[in-house]
Amino acid sequence: MSMNIGLDMMGGDLAPLEAVKGVQLYLKEVTNPATLWLVGDESKIRPLLQEYAIPEGAVRVVHSSQVIGMHEHPTKALKEKQQSSIAIGFHLLATGKMDAFISAGNTGAMLVGALYSLKPIDGIQRPTISTVIPKENGKTGVLLDVGLNSDCKAENLNQFATLGSLYAQHILGIGEPRVGLLNIGEEEGKGNILAQAAYPLLKENSHIHFIGNIEGRDLLLDKADVTVCEGFTGNVILKLAESLFDITRQHKTESEYFDRFDAEYYGGTPLLGVTKPVIIGHGISRSKSFLNMVKLAQKMLETDLLGKMKESFLS
Amino acid sequence: MSMNIGLDMMGGDLAPLEAVKGVQLYLKEVTNPATLWLVGDESKIRPLLQEYAIPEGAVRVVHSSQVIGMHEHPTKALKEKQQSSIAIGFHLLATGKMDAFISAGNTGAMLVGALYSLKPIDGIQRPTISTVIPKENGKTGVLLDVGLNSDCKAENLNQFATLGSLYAQHILGIGEPRVGLLNIGEEEGKGNILAQAAYPLLKENSHIHFIGNIEGRDLLLDKADVTVCEGFTGNVILKLAESLFDITRQHKTESEYFDRFDAEYYGGTPLLGVTKPVIIGHGISRSKSFLNMVKLAQKMLETDLLGKMKESFLS
Repeated sequence: MSMNIGLDMMGGDLAPLEAVKGVQLYLKEVTNPATLWLVGDESKIRPLLQEYAIPEGAVRVVHSSQVIGMHEHPTKALKEKQQSSIAIGFHLLATGKMDAFISAGNTGAMLVGALYSLKPIDGIQRPTISTVIPKENGKTGVLLDVGLNSDCKAENLNQFATLGSLYAQHILGIGEPRVGLLNIGEEEGKGNILAQAAYPLLKENSHIHFIGNIEGRDLLLDKADVTVCEGFTGNVILKLAESLFDITRQHKTESEYFDRFDAEYYGGTPLLGVTKPVIIGHGISRSKSFLNMVKLAQKMLETDLLGKMKESFLS
Repeated sequence: MSMNIGLDMMGGDLAPLEAVKGVQLYLKEVTNPATLWLVGDESKIRPLLQEYAIPEGAVRVVHSSQVIGMHEHPTKALKEKQQSSIAIGFHLLATGKMDAFISAGNTGAMLVGALYSLKPIDGIQRPTISTVIPKENGKTGVLLDVGLNSDCKAENLNQFATLGSLYAQHILGIGEPRVGLLNIGEEEGKGNILAQAAYPLLKENSHIHFIGNIEGRDLLLDKADVTVCEGFTGNVILKLAESLFDITRQHKTESEYFDRFDAEYYGGTPLLGVTKPVIIGHGISRSKSFLNMVKLAQKMLETDLLGKMKESFLS
């Protein structure tokens, strides 16, 4: 299977340099690399490719003359900058030239671009974004939604559970992922109106192994592999967790555990529930992030994660 | 001003021993102690009072023949156990014998007891519970609601802001507390429906100094002194923060900062918005917690915090 993975070379605070260094790491590390489509300003990319000795045959450079800045209004920018790396990337993805698209650029533009140019998987009401949660015993869990859907219905949470469970299974390699509902009490019936309504749906969901409510204190423990919530609470947790890394560093607290909260560690956030792999990186992405994002896209393609998601929502 | 502070001697996993030790610490430390009303099983308390050399004149023992267990159903237990320390405590508080009531017992029973036996302050729609947040620069902030109101309207958040601001001012000694709205974006207009509706109310609230949205990453930084949210997200944060203390201890991560997440450090959570001081302690409360809870009750009375809350909601 020949894979074509697209990478926005202009996205992120440290692009295109760190993106090129990430490409170099990827080509060194991976034995069966995908063809990388590098979307960006040729005049900036080509000299760097030469400098970092990227073999010409391993990549395809696609020129884009515009860049969407990190703070531009997503919809407006996408409309007005059709020659931007993000707009061109989504065009190539939607028309099947590329199989996946990755950017550490304007998050809003990536989301808007993906939702407009790709379809949601049939049956899915709301695509979602997730984050990985480092468990204190060394394992890794998934939390979703983390900000795309700040108001949710119970059925949205139920769908996130299926998507997250498939992600944990195929990407994190967890056999039968334990799915928990983020809540403020242990027993069924606890919580706000949304959690109370979501619980019975999750209990009946035959695609997942539901283990009940997960409280804030359990999030960092190895209790559930997948935890679902609406995107407001999820986003607050995501950003709070990211700040823990900074705080432990600033306080010179030596902690292998909190080092795992480094956003760099995981690369980027996949958008789940659309028909093709789209991965959104942090603005501060460095080479290792770009490496990890390309590897993640490749794994999503190799495991046919999206095919499995489509099957789950067929009935 | 003679103050009578009631303490449930039977509440908490380590009662009555740790409660008695807390009373001892309090009488040693405080130069102008309140009269402590110790509610509990006389046959268990009196020998301990003697053992710990508590002077008879400093306390009044009120016998209670029943105890509400930590896992009993609150409403049912309060109804059936009218001779329990919590039921008797609220009776003495409601009838004016005591000026404040403290318990580390069944949290639900404490909340139900308070809401049924005391009135909300005139104009307050929903009483609330808060937690203190240790800021990474050494300062201390307040977060509310942390679990009493899992579904909220915008006006509830607006009232929490006023209550939290008065608490920060009079109890934490913060001159003009900066109030933030917990949200998932920086600008006005961001967030879920609730946050979008709460923002303009907070902006117009003349009782507070509103500084805008506070994201998850800002919670542990010294950005806002008071942060408001609905009780679902707040409770998840509260419990996640508590788990950080345990995790850093377990991982033997030396951190003066995370040591401040020890629940023991702050004692207990005041119920805000009812007509009298009620403080709810952790089940695992030790002597230092009991000491701190009594001191907090005393400070709430000395600063006339509740009088100030009443004034704020007069108009």
